[in-house]
Amino acid sequence: MMKGFFVTIEGPDGSGKTTQIELLTRYLAAKDLDYIVTREPGGTRIGNRIREILLEKDYTEMTAETETLLYAASRAQHVAEVILPALKKGKIVLCDRFIDASMAYQGMGRGIDIECIRKINSIAVMGIMPHLTILLDIPPSIGLKRKKSHKEIDRIESEELEFHERVREGYLYLAKKEPKRIKVLDGCRDKKVIYSEIVSLVENLLKGGV
Amino acid sequence: MMKGFFVTIEGPDGSGKTTQIELLTRYLAAKDLDYIVTREPGGTRIGNRIREILLEKDYTEMTAETETLLYAASRAQHVAEVILPALKKGKIVLCDRFIDASMAYQGMGRGIDIECIRKINSIAVMGIMPHLTILLDIPPSIGLKRKKSHKEIDRIESEELEFHERVREGYLYLAKKEPKRIKVLDGCRDKKVIYSEIVSLVENLLKGGV
Repeated sequence: MMKGFFVTIEGPDGSGKTTQIELLTRYLAAKDLDYIVTREPGGTRIGNRIREILLEKDYTEMTAETETLLYAASRAQHVAEVILPALKKGKIVLCDRFIDASMAYQGMGRGIDIECIRKINSIAVMGIMPHLTILLDIPPSIGLKRKKSHKEIDRIESEELEFHERVREGYLYLAKKEPKRIKVLDGCRDKKVIYSEIVSLVENLLKGGV
Repeated sequence: MMKGFFVTIEGPDGSGKTTQIELLTRYLAAKDLDYIVTREPGGTRIGNRIREILLEKDYTEMTAETETLLYAASRAQHVAEVILPALKKGKIVLCDRFIDASMAYQGMGRGIDIECIRKINSIAVMGIMPHLTILLDIPPSIGLKRKKSHKEIDRIESEELEFHERVREGYLYLAKKEPKRIKVLDGCRDKKVIYSEIVSLVENLLKGGV
């Protein structure tokens, strides 16, 4: 029996995911709700080892297939070890990126067949899908500029602009196909405006139950 | 166009794979044939990073799904970077373990659905299957004893005997389904006897062409 709520935050690099997760975390804490915050790739010690390989800037020879399988491997461990147990305990799970990121980045971004990604991930997610996915949409040119000013960029972030354009289109395509689950928010606006929209989406979810 | 020959050696731990690969390598060198020797998991620098995670004895929490996906990720990189380019150049590729190991270890050993493993690996192997697979069959009790006397055992090797029994049955089942490709040799016999059988199988393959 799954009693918890699974919320994922998706979006291109620099779309403000980290900021919004921080704000939402404070909100959940203030409401005294039981939650965990986690991220992909990573979220477990095995996942963090996989994350190191995925983001290593020097590994330019990594094929799209290897990348897809490594993300799925990190996800499999994450679901089994962290997400599923928390949901079973009735917690709210806030996750920075999940299966939609594989569809957008490896599917539309790298050109791996979407059905193939779905099959590979079906073994990883063990039937778990987010109840709500918040997609922070932002033109990659703006997102990457924000990101580059913050820290050294990783292997995926250092891809050409066209790649990030395809990822954005991919995300929007997924949202169009699943409008009930995936909510698109314009990430270019003031962070407080976005935050209040996220809060009302989360409140709706918690009221409605699963 | 594939001009080379792809030969894989499979078998439980301690079945004598390393010894036979060494002997076969000397034979190919003496015949002045163009060959490479490689292994899974690993075979590339990214694959070797994945191998470290897979064999780390401390990672007892690793799920069967994560394990399956990590082996496939290592394989994807290996095929793209090493195996396929060598075959295209007309080389003989000798590989210590390949897709059959995933079927036997993660499928029959861990209980992951075989069809699922096949789907996950279809993205990794890019249509490449071995022309000849030599399966060194040996009761796990004997194989493990041989292995334990050699070096410290890894995460997979340290599984219970029943696991290794299922792996053996899995290998034999695969050989029964594909008798033309997978040749079962009794690994308990003298290494020279086994070697001469392997040489005649390889000679047959090279004569027959692909």
